[in-house]
Amino acid sequence: MAEFLYGHWAVMEALRAGRRSFEQLLITESTDEKGRIGEIIELAQKRGTNVRRVPRRIIDDLAEGANHQNVVLRVGAYPYATLDDAFALAAKRGEKPFFLLLDLLKDPQNVGSLLRVADAVGLHGVILPERRSVSVTPAVVNASAGAIEHLHVIQVNNLVNAMKELKARDVWLVGLEVGPDVPPIDRTDLNMALGLVLGSEGEGMRRLVRDTCDMLLSLPMRGQVASLNVATVGSVALYAAWQARGWQGWEHAPVQNKQ
Amino acid sequence: MAEFLYGHWAVMEALRAGRRSFEQLLITESTDEKGRIGEIIELAQKRGTNVRRVPRRIIDDLAEGANHQNVVLRVGAYPYATLDDAFALAAKRGEKPFFLLLDLLKDPQNVGSLLRVADAVGLHGVILPERRSVSVTPAVVNASAGAIEHLHVIQVNNLVNAMKELKARDVWLVGLEVGPDVPPIDRTDLNMALGLVLGSEGEGMRRLVRDTCDMLLSLPMRGQVASLNVATVGSVALYAAWQARGWQGWEHAPVQNKQ
Repeated sequence: MAEFLYGHWAVMEALRAGRRSFEQLLITESTDEKGRIGEIIELAQKRGTNVRRVPRRIIDDLAEGANHQNVVLRVGAYPYATLDDAFALAAKRGEKPFFLLLDLLKDPQNVGSLLRVADAVGLHGVILPERRSVSVTPAVVNASAGAIEHLHVIQVNNLVNAMKELKARDVWLVGLEVGPDVPPIDRTDLNMALGLVLGSEGEGMRRLVRDTCDMLLSLPMRGQVASLNVATVGSVALYAAWQARGWQGWEHAPVQNKQ
Repeated sequence: MAEFLYGHWAVMEALRAGRRSFEQLLITESTDEKGRIGEIIELAQKRGTNVRRVPRRIIDDLAEGANHQNVVLRVGAYPYATLDDAFALAAKRGEKPFFLLLDLLKDPQNVGSLLRVADAVGLHGVILPERRSVSVTPAVVNASAGAIEHLHVIQVNNLVNAMKELKARDVWLVGLEVGPDVPPIDRTDLNMALGLVLGSEGEGMRRLVRDTCDMLLSLPMRGQVASLNVATVGSVALYAAWQARGWQGWEHAPVQNKQ
């Protein structure tokens, strides 16, 4: 079934990644063809996608009231990946597998934020359960600033079974928990074949998911307010794990200190 | 001038912190007095605050259409702190000063997220410019889940002057930048009297703010999408700095590995 992606980055990155079918690009008729909109039109034309000018209310409708920034792209379904695709990517890069597993996350903004970080740190795969979880909707694509179009996202029927398969393939599963009796994130060298597991907003990991982890680690907190957003916890943990890998795959100029 | 805080956590933490004047607690008349609402009413009564039941549309109005969760608290102005308050807190705790400086951030959600982390890692002060920046509005209090009610937030007329004062008091200022020619965050031991400086969404730090930093560090990125949210960057950096302090002030049970 066709979907309508909206927003500059979502549309731009979908076109750049080139993994979906592109049916039509719709632009508000009053919008100038310069800046980002100009780039988007050019990209769409390179992909051979039909570009059409329409009244703003049509764009409003297709984006279901979201902040569309005057652009909507009619696309084919998101190309979910398989675990094998993710392992193949790790092997191709010569890296230890690096996964994120999300147990029943509900908020597209949280999942979108985590996917931006997943892209930034070079994850090989992001695993979501099929039911009672966010899936790859246009809202998630938008919240991820299009990052998801470049990532391997794997939808699984049963998260615990997927965890068992990862363990059988020598991936170490680390669940993130908040709590004073869980050792802090720097307690273990995270430079290993790794799957980080995050529980849902409010509820945390389901019992069986938690029990299937090889290890639990926490993000310490010393404040008055007893919780952190799951996207914050996941972002810090993903960066800690990538740092443990020595920023592998980061292309940077020779490091100089500021004068 | 009176303000109207809204949302469970914002109202609860304002009452818990007890730093403002509390004029009246308003609750939607149809709401049950159990769970969080019950706790809020109890806290308000302990503070001697008048509690009133009103029709939902009044709460809707006072919260200006935001997600108020059936509760609004009429309060006095936010008690901004001074640099001296923050240094006194550090001295009282026997810790090296630890600050966050936000240069012209515009989005209440970003600032709110950063304040939750500021609370979690035990910052002594958060510094904001008075003009062209988010200030402590009810939307920010809400987005911070009330964390801001417990923090020292310092509003300054001129951010660069405040930076000079911090430097004169031996605080090392580290600006966070994204870019391949800036050394990564783990390049320096952050266990020192520290001020982390973040630039605004999209624009980064203003030139003079950037030039006044003692050092620039980056959060590496290797992905396809070229940016991260400023709240993500700040959260990772704040945790890196607190980790360098050995999770100072964290009260935890003896660490045990999971069986």
